[in-house]
Amino acid sequence: MADERIWTAALVVIGDEILSGRTQDKNIAQLAAWLNVQGIRLAEVRVVPDRQDAIVEAVNVLRARNDYLFTTGGIGPTHDDITVDAIAAALGLPVVHHPDAMATLEAYYASRGGLTEARARMARVPDGASLIPNRVSGAPGIRIGNIFVMAGVPHITAGMLDALTGTLEGGRPVVSGTIGCWVAESEVADLLRDAERTHAGVAIGSYPFFRDGRTGANFVVRSPDQALVDRCLADLTRDLEADGRVVVAGGI
Amino acid sequence: MADERIWTAALVVIGDEILSGRTQDKNIAQLAAWLNVQGIRLAEVRVVPDRQDAIVEAVNVLRARNDYLFTTGGIGPTHDDITVDAIAAALGLPVVHHPDAMATLEAYYASRGGLTEARARMARVPDGASLIPNRVSGAPGIRIGNIFVMAGVPHITAGMLDALTGTLEGGRPVVSGTIGCWVAESEVADLLRDAERTHAGVAIGSYPFFRDGRTGANFVVRSPDQALVDRCLADLTRDLEADGRVVVAGGI
Repeated sequence: MADERIWTAALVVIGDEILSGRTQDKNIAQLAAWLNVQGIRLAEVRVVPDRQDAIVEAVNVLRARNDYLFTTGGIGPTHDDITVDAIAAALGLPVVHHPDAMATLEAYYASRGGLTEARARMARVPDGASLIPNRVSGAPGIRIGNIFVMAGVPHITAGMLDALTGTLEGGRPVVSGTIGCWVAESEVADLLRDAERTHAGVAIGSYPFFRDGRTGANFVVRSPDQALVDRCLADLTRDLEADGRVVVAGGI
Repeated sequence: MADERIWTAALVVIGDEILSGRTQDKNIAQLAAWLNVQGIRLAEVRVVPDRQDAIVEAVNVLRARNDYLFTTGGIGPTHDDITVDAIAAALGLPVVHHPDAMATLEAYYASRGGLTEARARMARVPDGASLIPNRVSGAPGIRIGNIFVMAGVPHITAGMLDALTGTLEGGRPVVSGTIGCWVAESEVADLLRDAERTHAGVAIGSYPFFRDGRTGANFVVRSPDQALVDRCLADLTRDLEADGRVVVAGGI
């Protein structure tokens, strides 16, 4: 168990619109949840501007130390879409027009005014790449080595992840269980620490909140081992109740 | 103008709950918007797990290459709150109990069961740090050098940013203006690129959407120079209208 192989992924979110505060990112949470199901852990995220040197640095560091690297954003047809060039530069590869992507875009735009030069930009890939189907709009995602280049618009990204489901090697999915308690987390800090130590292999997160004028916290137990999660939650519940606390299974 | 000093900040979001997909981050957008008003540009964000080596690496890289570094998360009383120790380790400083923070916490918990050892953890700071007022709950934020250590809970972070408003040196705020257009962005890609080139000093972002069965895009022009933004928006509107497009001031 201790030697179980852990698969990790990193995400580079590419976009001035996230760093300017204009757009609230939704791809971090979406990718994280999807990766959990694939048995892959999201280990690190970087948000970088639409600037080639920033993208190259993040991509090269993170692809080397993770099993998989995902990027979101910057694969559209306009001047601020520089992801493909940056990834190609990071890998030292030329950029080519992928014939299947050209065919897909030609079909997609046949009834939409035709495939212009700007639109054909969306068929550009680092040489040797394969495509990730885009079931929502015309432009496909791109796979090159362990890098997966996806859209920035969350529902298009969702479609690409759907197309990738079950195709990536991973380990056992991380499962989690939650209990809630109307308590200030500071009152049960020792109890939580002890529970994590006693149940080797779990991680316990404590997430306080203030609601309806009362202080509470949810405690989330995570591990790839469902039986271990269940045992830890049961012990934690017993200890909290022995302490006179009211525990809500599933969280508050 | 070209030599105008640009002030930058980076953010390290600390928390397994973001990387597991349990919690949707809101601090990136919140900090970005606040920094804009201070005339500081958010240059990069990293999301790292609750692990000291990951925090130390991100903090040391980003504090060196930005004017300011912010962190969110991991400053509560429980075992998974390791931010203070990690920042102290990154700076090579011991951790001490800050007397003002102790006094604040003692007052805050006087009517809430008293200051336990777990609660006193929230008074721990890297030696030499000053405090950032927390107007919402007891535990203060921390300033040490160019590092600002803030809460993970967004409304507490908001209170800390409010306390910092106007205290950080910055440049001219970046202003932006938006126009919307019912057009596929790929049809106006050249026009956008030319507009950005013609108006040196602006950045134009193109944000496509699909709504009510129609394709559209918003174009956001950013610069610290309001007159330049206005001029660019006016020229862009004129060129789009000359092209037969309907332009919506303020965006769609």
